[in-house]
Amino acid sequence: MVKIIMHGCNGKMGQVITRLVAEDEGAVIVAGIDTYTGIENPYPVYKSLEECEEEADVVIDFSNAKAVDGLLNMCADRKLPVVLCTTGLSEEQIALVEETAKKTAVLKSANMSLGINLLLKLLKEAAKVLAPAGYDMEIVEKHHNKKVDAPSGTALALADSLNEAAGGVYEYKYDRSSERVARDKKEIGISAVRGGTIVGEHEVLFAGEDEVIEFCHTAYSKAVFGKGALEAAKFLAGKEAGKYDMSDVIQF
Amino acid sequence: MVKIIMHGCNGKMGQVITRLVAEDEGAVIVAGIDTYTGIENPYPVYKSLEECEEEADVVIDFSNAKAVDGLLNMCADRKLPVVLCTTGLSEEQIALVEETAKKTAVLKSANMSLGINLLLKLLKEAAKVLAPAGYDMEIVEKHHNKKVDAPSGTALALADSLNEAAGGVYEYKYDRSSERVARDKKEIGISAVRGGTIVGEHEVLFAGEDEVIEFCHTAYSKAVFGKGALEAAKFLAGKEAGKYDMSDVIQF
Amino acid sequence: MVKIIMHGCNGKMGQVITRLVAEDEGAVIVAGIDTYTGIENPYPVYKSLEECEEEADVVIDFSNAKAVDGLLNMCADRKLPVVLCTTGLSEEQIALVEETAKKTAVLKSANMSLGINLLLKLLKEAAKVLAPAGYDMEIVEKHHNKKVDAPSGTALALADSLNEAAGGVYEYKYDRSSERVARDKKEIGISAVRGGTIVGEHEVLFAGEDEVIEFCHTAYSKAVFGKGALEAAKFLAGKEAGKYDMSDVIQF
Amino acid sequence: MVKIIMHGCNGKMGQVITRLVAEDEGAVIVAGIDTYTGIENPYPVYKSLEECEEEADVVIDFSNAKAVDGLLNMCADRKLPVVLCTTGLSEEQIALVEETAKKTAVLKSANMSLGINLLLKLLKEAAKVLAPAGYDMEIVEKHHNKKVDAPSGTALALADSLNEAAGGVYEYKYDRSSERVARDKKEIGISAVRGGTIVGEHEVLFAGEDEVIEFCHTAYSKAVFGKGALEAAKFLAGKEAGKYDMSDVIQF
Repeated sequence: MVKIIMHGCNGKMGQVITRLVAEDEGAVIVAGIDTYTGIENPYPVYKSLEECEEEADVVIDFSNAKAVDGLLNMCADRKLPVVLCTTGLSEEQIALVEETAKKTAVLKSANMSLGINLLLKLLKEAAKVLAPAGYDMEIVEKHHNKKVDAPSGTALALADSLNEAAGGVYEYKYDRSSERVARDKKEIGISAVRGGTIVGEHEVLFAGEDEVIEFCHTAYSKAVFGKGALEAAKFLAGKEAGKYDMSDVIQF
Repeated sequence: MVKIIMHGCNGKMGQVITRLVAEDEGAVIVAGIDTYTGIENPYPVYKSLEECEEEADVVIDFSNAKAVDGLLNMCADRKLPVVLCTTGLSEEQIALVEETAKKTAVLKSANMSLGINLLLKLLKEAAKVLAPAGYDMEIVEKHHNKKVDAPSGTALALADSLNEAAGGVYEYKYDRSSERVARDKKEIGISAVRGGTIVGEHEVLFAGEDEVIEFCHTAYSKAVFGKGALEAAKFLAGKEAGKYDMSDVIQF
Repeated sequence: MVKIIMHGCNGKMGQVITRLVAEDEGAVIVAGIDTYTGIENPYPVYKSLEECEEEADVVIDFSNAKAVDGLLNMCADRKLPVVLCTTGLSEEQIALVEETAKKTAVLKSANMSLGINLLLKLLKEAAKVLAPAGYDMEIVEKHHNKKVDAPSGTALALADSLNEAAGGVYEYKYDRSSERVARDKKEIGISAVRGGTIVGEHEVLFAGEDEVIEFCHTAYSKAVFGKGALEAAKFLAGKEAGKYDMSDVIQF
Repeated sequence: MVKIIMHGCNGKMGQVITRLVAEDEGAVIVAGIDTYTGIENPYPVYKSLEECEEEADVVIDFSNAKAVDGLLNMCADRKLPVVLCTTGLSEEQIALVEETAKKTAVLKSANMSLGINLLLKLLKEAAKVLAPAGYDMEIVEKHHNKKVDAPSGTALALADSLNEAAGGVYEYKYDRSSERVARDKKEIGISAVRGGTIVGEHEVLFAGEDEVIEFCHTAYSKAVFGKGALEAAKFLAGKEAGKYDMSDVIQF
């Protein structure tokens, strides 16, 4: 049973993780840390990590950039592994992450979704087999109508994953409407659909001779990041000092 | 039981229709017409319509442009309804179609697929309800890697159908990668995916508040046009002189 | 501009509708009613409809069964149209709905989703064309792993819609694993997938000769019911006394 | 450039492979073998392998069971690797395959599709990560309305792959309509959809907390087996004596 301290327990993601852990037989939250204490939780809540004396295997952090320095220093002192999910860190803080990782295990990742990280890995394997066999690779992503960038960062990460595995010679193609030519073998088409409140959908196609293989990921809410953080915490408990990311969690 | 003369019975589409009619309880082919006679069929085959004396309710034509004049004249004489599927007609021939339609029923359509024609109709009804309610409309089409135009003509026809029903004020958007702005309400996004040997797939999305409604059409081969022609023939039998198209077949 | 009184404005659905109306140019909430008043809203909130003197075109109700009697009587008195979304009404209350509908417009529907109600209508039209043409009809629905009934009520409603339009002679088939026979033309297959936290997905297929036509509905949250209620309110404003349901809102 | 002898070159699959090789820069057919010689090919065709003196790296066989004994003996003599795709072999012939594999490389597989074999492998890796993390696994397969067995053999193979990777404790669930219970964690749901002329579609879902990951395979024709055979041939050229199958071809 992995014992977790939830840093930022009363924020939106802290509450998501509280709910996820309640249904997970392999983990328990032994304490929460939050400056806001107006929410009732099935564990004691402290205003800061310093006040918390519960024994734990790992910290999950979904707080805010201001709280990160104190957290990292405390984790380094206590040799407490930490899954760091707060974003928007300064350069100084990123340097502090490196320092902390010399003393304890620190996991930090661009995307905390277990599913996307798994796909990034499996797609490499698929591309290694299918690209040399002549399958065309295409990506379609769908997001809500407020999103200003296209394609999504995740779509580009998926394309990079394909491209890297297939020899790094592919160009990304965002529009086919302005020319009349057959598809070039050495391109990866990336289409962006925008509408409604779609949280995030990514579809990667390998299209060959009378055959299509598709890998799809659909996120229904930001809870997917909570799930990933929980799995990361279970993985990180007991690990040696060092820097880790989600691809380490996805070991076969 | 609708009695059909299959004009061009030994071509690829003629054979598809022969197979479809064999499984259809509401129709029978009473005679075939083809200059090539090397294929055995469950009906007599004549080299030209003139030689054929079988009584019939309707002709399905999948022959070639050269054979069309003779066919139309014969149908006009005999008051025989005709489903005209041969493409690439000259302007003179198109004028002859108009003349013929004064004497007998002639059905001719840009796309013979029953499914696509049905969607063109249903999408109008959906757009009338959903566009005013704020749903965003997007189209994704997928075709084989040899196709040189994008988006497909069918995707544009679907977009026109949406646009017409929603007030005609929409712009078509083929690429979102070159700018950083939220989606404009008055656009219809159209994405084109190219790969492998995909025959043709069209997906129309209405994306609203936490809800997506999708209409998809997948063609696995050109047999879909045969199916549409057969239904058109059953519809056309007994109809008055005049010009018809597939939207008439899709009556609710 | 349709003026709405939001009855139950501080409940979950009341807040969803408050957010939806804020983004809708055709409607405005002029007052809210709720016994709980701890939430700030961009409109005045009263503890009961009696206290509310704002002029309005329609009431949307997402409160609770206890509050419904008072609401209906007040709407009848004031000739105020009402979209009644509270569920779990008693037989007496359902009788009161009938009485109220003699004096003002009352809209009540088994499923408030605009998308599902639209599909119920379009599928009938599709089935009328495609079933006689030999297309097979199948339904696949997907829901979360806590759902105890299968198939979903909505899947059965969709099947009934298909069946009714296609002549009423179809049997529903839930399992094909126990026998070795080809598919019977007169059946509608219904498959239920259960997993994770899937809110609700319904897919209706028409499979023909080398062609598949699919109609899919995906709900990402219960907000879809809020959207439907808002459209219903805009429809109901100014209507004569009588009983209405969502199929009236979906008029082409 | 891998030199191939196409055994059964004038059958349906032989012609598919002839077309595929023509577009493949890494392989060439140097000779074909077929008792029927009425088709023109871009390579010499012999009535039997004995007559063929072209030097080759590998044989692809899509002939018939009667021709297999001669083929295997000849391949053993000439130390010629062989991709054996003919099905319906007798027990004696299967024993001969084993004998032959002592002298040359023989590749034989239950399913020659590259895509399905790749999925069988990737799904194991996905299940190892996602099943312990609480994701539910479900399979939906779709086939034509003439298919008498359900679920498909491939769907069962996919389920076995998931089950094996996830600890072998799962039960397969084909029907949920007869009971009212929440989903059991230790089951894999398998749904079979039947309609039209669908060649074969397999969808494997992992459904977790607000997240769905899908792996889909769609076959549009039997050409997928030709593609797999060609890749297998390129893999097998130059390999040592022994028995191989498609999972060896899918090496990362």
